[in-house]
Amino acid sequence: MTQEQMMAEINAILSDSRKKAHVDQIVPLLHGKWELQIMLEVCRADVLRFGEYKRRLPHITNSVLTAALRNLEKWGLVTRTQYNEIPPRVEYAPTEKGRSLLPVCYAIVKWGAENSLDDCPADL
Amino acid sequence: MTQEQMMAEINAILSDSRKKAHVDQIVPLLHGKWELQIMLEVCRADVLRFGEYKRRLPHITNSVLTAALRNLEKWGLVTRTQYNEIPPRVEYAPTEKGRSLLPVCYAIVKWGAENSLDDCPADL
Repeated sequence: MTQEQMMAEINAILSDSRKKAHVDQIVPLLHGKWELQIMLEVCRADVLRFGEYKRRLPHITNSVLTAALRNLEKWGLVTRTQYNEIPPRVEYAPTEKGRSLLPVCYAIVKWGAENSLDDCPADL
Repeated sequence: MTQEQMMAEINAILSDSRKKAHVDQIVPLLHGKWELQIMLEVCRADVLRFGEYKRRLPHITNSVLTAALRNLEKWGLVTRTQYNEIPPRVEYAPTEKGRSLLPVCYAIVKWGAENSLDDCPADL
């Protein structure tokens, strides 16, 4: 797909006010510090237990991870399954809608791998 | 490109620690409330004057827009050209690196157009 085709499709979407309203709604997903990173991990692993997120995202605190997972569940992007075992086991898996975020994650990861935000002088 | 191919490429990128560090650096770009939206507008229009951003992003204040454009310039994503006219004219244009963000914008806009974050019950 060429840049021109992408731009034409972007312009078509954004000129439709109903679709534009949907696009504007993704903003909270992008602005949460962790939500998109968690979605990427849940898609990579398919099913993850709470403790496994903690290992994969070592800088996150329990309360922040809980809040982010609750947001993703509320938005219909992950499902939460609790097993009544001792100790209790909680697993998160991507929904179909959550899995459909993969092209977004892919575009971001690919751009990030090929570019750097700090490789240019500040006085450019 | 299939989901499996995307996932394989994501995993390859993230297992390379140098590339992963680059990917982690995009975080400030995604978390700025406006930076990605401004990049989309500057790519759509090619060249934009300060006042035109204000019209396209009606909820942004002058100081926030100035700070966001300064970030984008620092990261090498836009160039700023000042013309010594009266009144002074300042134009922003995407660099090649800035224009390369188009696939990221495209993936986000397309996902947003096809999905909604609030169409599922809170008690899902």
